[in-house]
Amino acid sequence: MTGAVIAVDIGGTTVKAAVVDDRGRRRSRREAPSLGGDDTVAAVRSMIDGLRAEAAAAGLDVLAAGVVTPGLVDASTGRIAYASNLGWRDFDLRGALETELRLPVSVGHDVRAAGRAEAQLGAARGASDFVLLQLGTGIAAAVMTGGVLVTGAGSAAGEAGHMPVYPGGEDCPCGKRGCLEAYAAGAAVPRRYRAAGGTGASTAREVTALLGRDALADQVWTEATTALAFGLNTLTMMLDPALIVLGGGMALAGDALLKPVSAALSELLVWRAAPPLRLSSVGPAAGQLGAAIEAFALTGSAACVDEWTSGPAGCPE
Amino acid sequence: MTGAVIAVDIGGTTVKAAVVDDRGRRRSRREAPSLGGDDTVAAVRSMIDGLRAEAAAAGLDVLAAGVVTPGLVDASTGRIAYASNLGWRDFDLRGALETELRLPVSVGHDVRAAGRAEAQLGAARGASDFVLLQLGTGIAAAVMTGGVLVTGAGSAAGEAGHMPVYPGGEDCPCGKRGCLEAYAAGAAVPRRYRAAGGTGASTAREVTALLGRDALADQVWTEATTALAFGLNTLTMMLDPALIVLGGGMALAGDALLKPVSAALSELLVWRAAPPLRLSSVGPAAGQLGAAIEAFALTGSAACVDEWTSGPAGCPE
Repeated sequence: MTGAVIAVDIGGTTVKAAVVDDRGRRRSRREAPSLGGDDTVAAVRSMIDGLRAEAAAAGLDVLAAGVVTPGLVDASTGRIAYASNLGWRDFDLRGALETELRLPVSVGHDVRAAGRAEAQLGAARGASDFVLLQLGTGIAAAVMTGGVLVTGAGSAAGEAGHMPVYPGGEDCPCGKRGCLEAYAAGAAVPRRYRAAGGTGASTAREVTALLGRDALADQVWTEATTALAFGLNTLTMMLDPALIVLGGGMALAGDALLKPVSAALSELLVWRAAPPLRLSSVGPAAGQLGAAIEAFALTGSAACVDEWTSGPAGCPE
Repeated sequence: MTGAVIAVDIGGTTVKAAVVDDRGRRRSRREAPSLGGDDTVAAVRSMIDGLRAEAAAAGLDVLAAGVVTPGLVDASTGRIAYASNLGWRDFDLRGALETELRLPVSVGHDVRAAGRAEAQLGAARGASDFVLLQLGTGIAAAVMTGGVLVTGAGSAAGEAGHMPVYPGGEDCPCGKRGCLEAYAAGAAVPRRYRAAGGTGASTAREVTALLGRDALADQVWTEATTALAFGLNTLTMMLDPALIVLGGGMALAGDALLKPVSAALSELLVWRAAPPLRLSSVGPAAGQLGAAIEAFALTGSAACVDEWTSGPAGCPE
């Protein structure tokens, strides 16, 4: 029987779950709205139960589940100190899942799990000092230094979206001013485009589709990529990463994102070379794949994960 | 015989060396100008030789030397990849000292060594996640995360002075614009005071002595502490330190530094508490004490260092 895990990425609006086999293939998937609090826990339990039944029918032996969420996550205890969008405060998420499911469950942080996936399988493979900047609706970072993911004293490290890039600048929805996220996040780009009078786009992707043909779209996008370069200037100075990976939904813009950010960062750094800048190779499912890696680590078959991109040799049948 | 080491802090203008005994007491000291290149190496050798003779005469057994410098320092190899003020490029500093001195020599980075001293003996004692912001002529940081000092991929981490706090802001002597150091370093404060027309001060300490009686001094100092708060806002978001220590010569300003930076940081953070902010308790000699700690680590009597502040119990006579 083939070993597998169930990997769950709990977001503020959607819960995404999948069966991931020991070759790293997602075999079946489910999605549900994330309603917060106990409802989200119930949805996660129900999805795991359903996927487990499907996996068994397909000849897969589910060994563990890996769950990742935003917020202040203590991976060692499985507790969530605080997750604003999910309504959890000092909540024993691992306990709430393991007891009823009778399955080992790992609990991790969504962006750090994405960093783990990039390090083991993706654009940062082999790097022990890198930054993953996850550009979604908001912006957060996973920082690996000396081979270890930085969690901070209260599991709150990586709030790259709320670095002040323009002191006293535009209001951020978070209540602070001049945050990177207020200029460059997936939510900020269309908001700033419309605020400037633009009418042709209501998502970041639609704004990038207008580049070269809509002066407002060009302006807002240049301001977003410039703000990102200022943020990466700071991270390069402080952390000296071997490389920087841009991930999340906005990284799907490809060269339209990578080229202007790289050029602006190189110019800003003046006296040192910019670290290589790459797009995520795992893509927006990096958090979910990181959850699978963390779950496989629980089962003792973590080494197999190394084979996911290099081929199936060495993985137990 | 009492064990001792010789601790050497190589700066851009001065080399400071001292015999440090196994109680952490500096027993005798020497200073020499730092002329760069081979001249600095010769000065370090000569100081170590001289101090060693003095130590022997005082009944101290010199077991090792610890040397710290600015620049790109690889502590594992003892090589300096680059140190602009010292004229070293890909230089085997440890080899250049050990061979002639016939003494084990540790080579470390001055600010990270200061961080080590704060962690073992000073204001960050017991913390495994903290930032030491070293405020001297320039500004640099030591970052400890999960108990490990961050070096970065090329030993270049911690360049906090060259984080852009005001994008497109004032020219920094480094060639970049809007760097923290251009507003808040020991060199910047009197430069900005004079550029604004001030005539009563030519050092940062003299500017702080005028606070409350000279409106220009007040203004320039407020701009410096505000810039520091913006920088610490970023570091708090990214690293979530358990505490922040302000060290270096400017920390001798005491509450005149600590209070406005704390107040501004708390206000800027809005939705999270500021990490506690403390002044260095080791003081400007933190780098030298860190060099002593690194040298004692070579001798295998590192445990004794833990007793430096708690008393002599447990240290070998």
